[in-house]
Amino acid sequence: MRFALLKTIIKKGDIFMAWYNTVGKENDVVVSSRIRFARNIADYPFDSKLDETSANEIIEKVSSALGNDFTKVDFKDVSAYEAAALVEKHYISPDFAKKKLPHTLFKNKKDGVAVMVCEEDHIRLQCILPGLSLDNAFKNACIYDDVLDDNLNIAFSEKLGYLTHCPTNLGLAMRASVMVFLPALTMTKSMENLSVQLSKLGFIIRGMYGEGSQPDGCLYQISNRITMGVTEDDTIKRLEEIVTQICEKERKAREIIKSDNLSLLADRICRAYGTLKYARVISSKEFLKLFADVRLGISLGLINDITYEALGEIMIGVLPANIVLRNGGKVISDFERDVLRADYIRESIG
Amino acid sequence: MRFALLKTIIKKGDIFMAWYNTVGKENDVVVSSRIRFARNIADYPFDSKLDETSANEIIEKVSSALGNDFTKVDFKDVSAYEAAALVEKHYISPDFAKKKLPHTLFKNKKDGVAVMVCEEDHIRLQCILPGLSLDNAFKNACIYDDVLDDNLNIAFSEKLGYLTHCPTNLGLAMRASVMVFLPALTMTKSMENLSVQLSKLGFIIRGMYGEGSQPDGCLYQISNRITMGVTEDDTIKRLEEIVTQICEKERKAREIIKSDNLSLLADRICRAYGTLKYARVISSKEFLKLFADVRLGISLGLINDITYEALGEIMIGVLPANIVLRNGGKVISDFERDVLRADYIRESIG
Repeated sequence: MRFALLKTIIKKGDIFMAWYNTVGKENDVVVSSRIRFARNIADYPFDSKLDETSANEIIEKVSSALGNDFTKVDFKDVSAYEAAALVEKHYISPDFAKKKLPHTLFKNKKDGVAVMVCEEDHIRLQCILPGLSLDNAFKNACIYDDVLDDNLNIAFSEKLGYLTHCPTNLGLAMRASVMVFLPALTMTKSMENLSVQLSKLGFIIRGMYGEGSQPDGCLYQISNRITMGVTEDDTIKRLEEIVTQICEKERKAREIIKSDNLSLLADRICRAYGTLKYARVISSKEFLKLFADVRLGISLGLINDITYEALGEIMIGVLPANIVLRNGGKVISDFERDVLRADYIRESIG
Repeated sequence: MRFALLKTIIKKGDIFMAWYNTVGKENDVVVSSRIRFARNIADYPFDSKLDETSANEIIEKVSSALGNDFTKVDFKDVSAYEAAALVEKHYISPDFAKKKLPHTLFKNKKDGVAVMVCEEDHIRLQCILPGLSLDNAFKNACIYDDVLDDNLNIAFSEKLGYLTHCPTNLGLAMRASVMVFLPALTMTKSMENLSVQLSKLGFIIRGMYGEGSQPDGCLYQISNRITMGVTEDDTIKRLEEIVTQICEKERKAREIIKSDNLSLLADRICRAYGTLKYARVISSKEFLKLFADVRLGISLGLINDITYEALGEIMIGVLPANIVLRNGGKVISDFERDVLRADYIRESIG
């Protein structure tokens, strides 16, 4: 029982590191690709009407279905900062972190797959992979979606597609999104125009941390807006095409910026690296500015002392909850956090 | 025939490097010490009435008197940028560089002694040594002053002392000056008060490049203002005492700044080092700011990757004429100079 029948079962062969510290296709522009399915079990009410017993039953059922491939993270054992650190890694949603009813995360490191149980929907299954890899992310997600489909009574209507808590997800109940790094298009003020064009095509572009967030670090998320009257296959194919075109535009813009005044560009980029390497206090906001310059520097061959992988690891490691997590959960002031952030960056760069 | 009879002939034993890339006593605060004598030959008119023949005769006489210890630099063979580079190294005065009549420099690298012939006075003999070393600078200068005194008819009056072109030099005809690095007293806004106190004691404090120059890089020159009714010995002794006291004040101010907020201070200092190490374009003004932070960092033990000696070499090497000199005298734009400055710093830091 599937809305679109393009899925093929693939072997779980490849070993994936975390999406943020690994490189993939088009990595100079595309940081990561994500597919997320929303699913609900027909035998239970939606989240807003769910009680503790039912929530626990759902968790148990999903757990049995998924089997041994997954690490189970029961959120009754997870502190607020540990949950926040998982949000920062994009493994769970901010809403999931704050849930009051029982809720559990199933993580499968190998395939980049994570399953939130008892989020807004009973099941939110996602796969994040590095680089432009929507097709693989989709295939990986489908493996476990099929497993769930085979073992659970997933709520589905021939007319409406997958039934979801929020009507905007009805139909495909799939969100395909790509995180892109667009420093040159940002610098050349091309983003507003791009956003209008994408909207016309049924896609939306936003800051890295979702709706309303600022495009700090020149990181943007592009995702599908339309979930009715389209197929998963078409949606993924169109998004992949759009992102490929954006990659070309961004690369051209980079070349223009580079030929404009290489010395000044190299100066800004190299200073950014020098600051990351030597600063003792760095705010989150400043980090993202430096990050963008250094990442651009890597892509232009102006910075050779750090890799995309290492910079990606740092991008997540500098986030507030990840800092607290490394610091054993100790409560710290904003200033102490900025000091620990700088310490961490220096140690990471070496 | 001397105004004060304290001079003792000392052996020219020690080998001196350039004043700016060597460390001396109190080097955390004192960059260098300089003694300068103004002398004129009684048989010739002062500079303003001097003709070419007389100028050449004076040069010849001084040359014979000084003998083989000196390298002779005839300024008819010196380009404008080479002369400017010597000004930047404090081996000659800006006025000397621009003279139209024949003028020659005699340099004695070993003793830090340089003799300008046909500057404002017929002879300007100076010794610059690293650190607080006025007594040695005085001794070294005296060795050659005695040589000149023994061989030439130096203009001297029992009543007025040494006769000089400018009446403000009459008497001692000696300028003793010390270049000090006062970042903490600058930061704590103590310089105005210090200037008033020094003035009362007959001393004057100014920016590094003499009268009217800005104290960029937190570098200042302290020198004697009074040349009548005092002895060389007393002047040097008092200046040395004053500078020793200023050293103590500056060190106390550094400790206060350090204990105030070490993280923020270390951040500023380390970022400055990172910028020096990585920037691709650096203006002269920015360099001096970074220089001051890094030099302070060395003194506080916050920077260990660079020495006073290396930083001192860079301090001179980044100056405009020295950049042009290294670049074979080629005419360059301001921007190209800023690029070459950054290149030079990066290569020097390694």
